[in-house]
Amino acid sequence: MTTGEAFNKLKAIMEDTHNLRAAAAVLQWDMEVCMPPKGAEARGRHLATLSACAHERFTDAAVGKLIDQLHGQADALTEDERALFNEIAYQYERATCIPEAFVRRHAKAQSAAYHAWLEARKQSDFSLFKPHLECMVNLAREKADYWGYEASPYDALLEEYERGMTVAQLRVIFDSLATRQRTLIARIMNAPNQPDLSWLEQPWNKDQQLQFTEHVLRDIGYDFAAGRQDQAAHPFTTSFSIQDVRVTTRVDERMFFSALYSSIHEGGHALYEQGYSQTDEGTLLADAPSLGMHESQSRLWENLIGRSLPFWRHYLPVARGLFPGQLDTVTPEQVYAATNRVTPSLIRVESDECTYNLHIILRFELETALIEGALDVADVPAAWNEKMATLLDIEVPDDAHGCLQDIHWSHGAFGYFPTYALGNLYAAQLFDAMTAAIPDMQEHVACGTFDTVRGWLRDNIHCVGRRKTAPDIITDVTGAAPQPDAYLNYLETKYTSLYGLS
Amino acid sequence: MTTGEAFNKLKAIMEDTHNLRAAAAVLQWDMEVCMPPKGAEARGRHLATLSACAHERFTDAAVGKLIDQLHGQADALTEDERALFNEIAYQYERATCIPEAFVRRHAKAQSAAYHAWLEARKQSDFSLFKPHLECMVNLAREKADYWGYEASPYDALLEEYERGMTVAQLRVIFDSLATRQRTLIARIMNAPNQPDLSWLEQPWNKDQQLQFTEHVLRDIGYDFAAGRQDQAAHPFTTSFSIQDVRVTTRVDERMFFSALYSSIHEGGHALYEQGYSQTDEGTLLADAPSLGMHESQSRLWENLIGRSLPFWRHYLPVARGLFPGQLDTVTPEQVYAATNRVTPSLIRVESDECTYNLHIILRFELETALIEGALDVADVPAAWNEKMATLLDIEVPDDAHGCLQDIHWSHGAFGYFPTYALGNLYAAQLFDAMTAAIPDMQEHVACGTFDTVRGWLRDNIHCVGRRKTAPDIITDVTGAAPQPDAYLNYLETKYTSLYGLS
Repeated sequence: MTTGEAFNKLKAIMEDTHNLRAAAAVLQWDMEVCMPPKGAEARGRHLATLSACAHERFTDAAVGKLIDQLHGQADALTEDERALFNEIAYQYERATCIPEAFVRRHAKAQSAAYHAWLEARKQSDFSLFKPHLECMVNLAREKADYWGYEASPYDALLEEYERGMTVAQLRVIFDSLATRQRTLIARIMNAPNQPDLSWLEQPWNKDQQLQFTEHVLRDIGYDFAAGRQDQAAHPFTTSFSIQDVRVTTRVDERMFFSALYSSIHEGGHALYEQGYSQTDEGTLLADAPSLGMHESQSRLWENLIGRSLPFWRHYLPVARGLFPGQLDTVTPEQVYAATNRVTPSLIRVESDECTYNLHIILRFELETALIEGALDVADVPAAWNEKMATLLDIEVPDDAHGCLQDIHWSHGAFGYFPTYALGNLYAAQLFDAMTAAIPDMQEHVACGTFDTVRGWLRDNIHCVGRRKTAPDIITDVTGAAPQPDAYLNYLETKYTSLYGLS
Repeated sequence: MTTGEAFNKLKAIMEDTHNLRAAAAVLQWDMEVCMPPKGAEARGRHLATLSACAHERFTDAAVGKLIDQLHGQADALTEDERALFNEIAYQYERATCIPEAFVRRHAKAQSAAYHAWLEARKQSDFSLFKPHLECMVNLAREKADYWGYEASPYDALLEEYERGMTVAQLRVIFDSLATRQRTLIARIMNAPNQPDLSWLEQPWNKDQQLQFTEHVLRDIGYDFAAGRQDQAAHPFTTSFSIQDVRVTTRVDERMFFSALYSSIHEGGHALYEQGYSQTDEGTLLADAPSLGMHESQSRLWENLIGRSLPFWRHYLPVARGLFPGQLDTVTPEQVYAATNRVTPSLIRVESDECTYNLHIILRFELETALIEGALDVADVPAAWNEKMATLLDIEVPDDAHGCLQDIHWSHGAFGYFPTYALGNLYAAQLFDAMTAAIPDMQEHVACGTFDTVRGWLRDNIHCVGRRKTAPDIITDVTGAAPQPDAYLNYLETKYTSLYGLS
């Protein structure tokens, strides 16, 4: 077989696996958005078959042989072909060094752990989840052994979500975040200017809220001809192709900000998915290099743009039109202050920009200790509560509001949490680089015009796909490796002014 | 391998193919109901992969070997297992006697023919479609040769849609239908009592129309916890499992009846799909034995129940509540008359109960002549127009309103049309048997109570699945083979009274 023939054959098999995964994504979207309740049982079987078929094709011995042949002939490929080949070879290696029997054992344990976690959280009883968490920790260590690592088994797990990042790097970054964020929070808690939230306490018509979100999504450049927005209990973004990227949002009549920021957050993810190079369609290159990089896009739009004063200078008049009489006496400054209120809280997903990373650091410290064997599962609740007191000065009333609040561990997704914090850091670094490249960017935002912002992100981030790791993209685009200073400077500047800190 | 092992292995492969087909059905539903326009291109590729994977698994040589082993050991299976085995063996035989190369050639020709037909219909220019129709006719003959037949190649094609029915039987049935329906239509055209349609000419709020359809769907027993109704340009029913059966409808503000009867029609299909035996879930037995049998369920609910006077005695008051002030002076008799107006027309899908079968007979006669070689494709427009004059006394102004009106031939679906007429005949035969079994059925309908009707259909038709052919089910349940008299008697009785025929 010639190099060209081998590459085309490999590409065709990959396209098949892509199509099967895209089909599974449609079934999952439907499950969250459309499916009638009784459809769930059969849907689980449909998804299991799709997943098995995709895995079977992807890990087929024929793929290995084609990769082996092409390894010696990569010079004959174009640059784009070589990038795709490298990604295929990387993912094939990762997938095939895990034995089939382990995959099945993991899936079974995961399902049991998930159901145990649901029940444990409901009853706020960690003991129900404990044996399952032990099992998931052991499986994670086993997986790390299959993948291999140098310094810490956690590095092997982290690579699944944030390739190119290490525990050692994270420890340095997170130490700096913890110190400066805790100092900032303490100053904010004692600040004279606490925001006025009284105007928020009125009902906000749901249809008008949805119209508002659609208006903003359109403005930031989300293409509704290549996507749609629906409602879901837990908002998410999914894509079946670059031309079919769907977002979901959650609307609550009592919450003025909830649907809006949910939509902007998912819209940020969606712009990424709609922004891949069309020539990468259906290949492994049309994907983010890491979850942190994906999260950087949602956070950049949600927080650095959506929670800024220029944003509200433009959108408060829009909101006034949609909610007649309800916002007449409110100023952009008041909305800006209200949407940036800082309150240390128990629950990660409800936390603000200033406290969020501390929730992540807590989880990172427990996870690394568990995976490296320095912490027993039995001691997780006590360790959680102690860190909650140290980092956020909060007392945890029960495990449901403590170590049982997140779904991730029941899935065995150790190494996932840090990507949320990295998303914040990347977003701030990218925002600084973008501000340097587009000096009048804030004026564009204040006009509700986002072509330059979106264009810059598309050219520098979206189009790259998985051609580089996230740390490499950040370094190339911003001139600095992933680091906490940009985010900390952003937070300190914003909140010093907002809360009148001296 | 023991018989039990072989059967379980065969069943597992069949479940996989079922799951892949169910996934494809979800993607198709999404394509019609939800998908943004730009998503179409990639969706085509996703569906092609699913279809190829399902076909590959279904026709795998391993399946053939298991079938060969089990053929000699069928006695060791339970009755239900044997029924399933027979259905698998039958469908495997049908699928594998068609060569792969032919399947690909057919798919390619079909796609070209479909696009040519769209353009030909748009321009009303048969010459654009002619070479493609020739190609599809030749492919259909080739397919008939692969499948094999005794009397007519059309029999082999018919078997795909209406197993157990033959051209010879259809000729006898259709001759009788043509004669008596034409006589009845002539009498109706000269009748003194033409219905009053003036009250229909007012706008009918779309949301209220949808509420009306949901009300009726609920009443007839459609389970919304195992399904949902959406809007679609061309209404259809689809199912992914017995517990997820979805209907679609079309709403037009100017048409009082359109959404309602579309919903009842699809609801009839859906009750069938929701009514299969739960133990057959995910197997080839959870399906109708033929398209005619499926259509009998939609027609029975739509026409024999939905277009009856007892139905409107109950639902006119319901409609009055939904459309305040719009129906106050209208009587159940007026609605009944309006929904049963007879008008010979050019277009099959717009035709009424009295003229519909004549449209089918026209197509059946042309199709059999084409497949048996008695008619040249070039002569189709002239033959169409001539038969339109003979059967319906209508002059065809152009081919767009004549032989180019239907999509079916562009798909190569010769043998499909007769199932529509058979659906009408089966419905009438079943309705008579049901009336004999439930003497007070009409009173139940007049109360909007359909448990007995649905229960009878479930026990006698739905639960059977594909354990028997449609003609066998009809014969067993009604005591007579498929025949036209029940339908003709129903039509003659209904219209003699409605139009005051002497």
